[in-house]
Amino acid sequence: MSSLSLFLMTTDILERFYGVIPAGGVGTRLWPLSRAAAPKFLHDLTGSGSTLIRATYDRLSPLAGERIMVVTGTAHRAAVCEQLPEISDANLVLESEPKDSAAAIGLAAAILHRRDPETIMGSFAADQVVGPLEVFLEAVREAVVTAATGKIVTIGIRPTLPSTGFGYIRQGGRLGIEGAPSATDVAEFVEKPSEEVARRYVASGDYLWNAGMFVAPTSLMLQHLEANEPALYAGLCEIADAWDGPERDQVAARVWPTLPKIAIDYAVAEPAAAAGDVAMVPGTFTWDDVGDFAALGRLNPAAENSKLKVIGEGARVYSDNASGVVVSDSKRVIALIGIDDVVVVDTPDALLVTTQEHAQQVKQAVEALKASGAVDVL
Amino acid sequence: MSSLSLFLMTTDILERFYGVIPAGGVGTRLWPLSRAAAPKFLHDLTGSGSTLIRATYDRLSPLAGERIMVVTGTAHRAAVCEQLPEISDANLVLESEPKDSAAAIGLAAAILHRRDPETIMGSFAADQVVGPLEVFLEAVREAVVTAATGKIVTIGIRPTLPSTGFGYIRQGGRLGIEGAPSATDVAEFVEKPSEEVARRYVASGDYLWNAGMFVAPTSLMLQHLEANEPALYAGLCEIADAWDGPERDQVAARVWPTLPKIAIDYAVAEPAAAAGDVAMVPGTFTWDDVGDFAALGRLNPAAENSKLKVIGEGARVYSDNASGVVVSDSKRVIALIGIDDVVVVDTPDALLVTTQEHAQQVKQAVEALKASGAVDVL
Repeated sequence: MSSLSLFLMTTDILERFYGVIPAGGVGTRLWPLSRAAAPKFLHDLTGSGSTLIRATYDRLSPLAGERIMVVTGTAHRAAVCEQLPEISDANLVLESEPKDSAAAIGLAAAILHRRDPETIMGSFAADQVVGPLEVFLEAVREAVVTAATGKIVTIGIRPTLPSTGFGYIRQGGRLGIEGAPSATDVAEFVEKPSEEVARRYVASGDYLWNAGMFVAPTSLMLQHLEANEPALYAGLCEIADAWDGPERDQVAARVWPTLPKIAIDYAVAEPAAAAGDVAMVPGTFTWDDVGDFAALGRLNPAAENSKLKVIGEGARVYSDNASGVVVSDSKRVIALIGIDDVVVVDTPDALLVTTQEHAQQVKQAVEALKASGAVDVL
Repeated sequence: MSSLSLFLMTTDILERFYGVIPAGGVGTRLWPLSRAAAPKFLHDLTGSGSTLIRATYDRLSPLAGERIMVVTGTAHRAAVCEQLPEISDANLVLESEPKDSAAAIGLAAAILHRRDPETIMGSFAADQVVGPLEVFLEAVREAVVTAATGKIVTIGIRPTLPSTGFGYIRQGGRLGIEGAPSATDVAEFVEKPSEEVARRYVASGDYLWNAGMFVAPTSLMLQHLEANEPALYAGLCEIADAWDGPERDQVAARVWPTLPKIAIDYAVAEPAAAAGDVAMVPGTFTWDDVGDFAALGRLNPAAENSKLKVIGEGARVYSDNASGVVVSDSKRVIALIGIDDVVVVDTPDALLVTTQEHAQQVKQAVEALKASGAVDVL
């Protein structure tokens, strides 16, 4: 194929692309900054000036224009519309209660499929940090071209450390797709490993992080959803059939609460991989899911002559021989003296003090606070 | 002397006793709990239910009744009157600006001396923690009896650790005063020692902490003040002469700002000791000047099954594997995870995070905040 005709073909394919942004998770490990009423994706966690959801939208729009759908909780409607004033009512899917990723992404697939059965959707979580833009877009372009050959394509992330917090994807052979030179088969998805296993994975060069980024024809997504989760599929079809008509709210209110909760990985990705329908495009961009406050420390620079990362507009922090991360979501003066690797998160009604090493345990603290009835700050 | 006549003599002497409570220091090392507008003596730092100044007053009243004078800043008038509703206007001496302890205690001495030249005054700082009451009162009784023989009497504290934060008093020979069997001479006052020297002091058994508690005839206090600080003495006399008349405010406003700042130790105690006019009564009660947050940790019990001391009414603290001190002066939820020997002080407009080891350095932080213009939280 000539490069001109490849360009034309690719352009046609890219016009089928539709971005989907599931904005569901609270980000419990980022409590008390992130919480039910103000989840992670509504915060600017990198000092970029944009909230994570705004940055996610802006990252997709060079490819998708305004063909971007957001799936979020009804409670976040106003905040999401404030962040994304250009989003149309048709592209804002509201969940009355959280039903995990298969329902959220599956409903987007079913709605988009009814609008245009040729759609290639790309699902990118609202609360991740990615850069640089061009490297990301090139990976998505390859993923779309690969998806057009009839594949569910996951973008795997080249690991930078032996993380035990992510699942991994073992890379198979190259697919040799024109316009998608780095696309490969997926040999298998593997669950979060032990540290020893993670080290082996990273050393081998064959394993990439599963960042939960999927690009696929809506038809293929739905086909696997039907095969693996027929009840979920049937419910989503019922809602999607009514979505663009006058019965939307009534049908959604009746059916959504009955849907089973299951992750998209189990409902679609893993069985589809076993059936040989999943490909991978490696992402060489930097990627962080900002899973805890230690991540926040990694993502933010320290001020000059300081070992302390300070996050928050108008923060008033005095430090003497202190290192770690301070998140200031209040206007209070914060003084840190002679303390290392500390994490201090200061909000108007709740304060967290821990260490970078214990950042993952914030989740248990939130569960304990919930159990103790301190729901006003969760 | 028969024990009856000793009792009668002692009773006569004790009727000359007048308590004086200098309530001056801000307690900078207890920032942000203690600050200019709410100094240390206005806080309940031991969970007793009483502020330190109220507890100091209650400790003296079994001996002094309402013969207790308070010297404090004009800014604290309302707060002190709220704490001590029984105090008369005659017994509340207000300083328009801080002039150190010689001026504060010297003015009390000069006023009381004019009211009754037989007065034996006892000066006890408003921000110390002392117990048990009976042991304290017995030491004060002995000090008053000793003072009546023509001595300035300091109550030395039997040291419980080789502190480098206090001055020490070297004990001389027993004085053999009837009714004051434990009174001794003072060999010398010594400045805050190095840790090695402090260890030697404590091991020797001859050195006691200088807690700044003085009991003395007002006449003798004023005599030494006149000899050592004639300008200060003259100014204090001018104010005291006008104090109980219509010119009080006018004279005080004119003279007080001109007075030299000097500590009572240098202006009276040390030169008087050199002249052989100072005696000591050892105090075997427990004593703490609550000098920093590490002291606050020592003075408060941890909750059951916890290594964390929590101070503050209605504190909402969640801790997981944390030890140290939390002072909650706000209604916020505070979560501490996996952090040891931490000090967290949470107030509505300022937060301190440090360690018990670095508790003394809070003073420098306050100075730095002052220099940076953050005076709203000081």
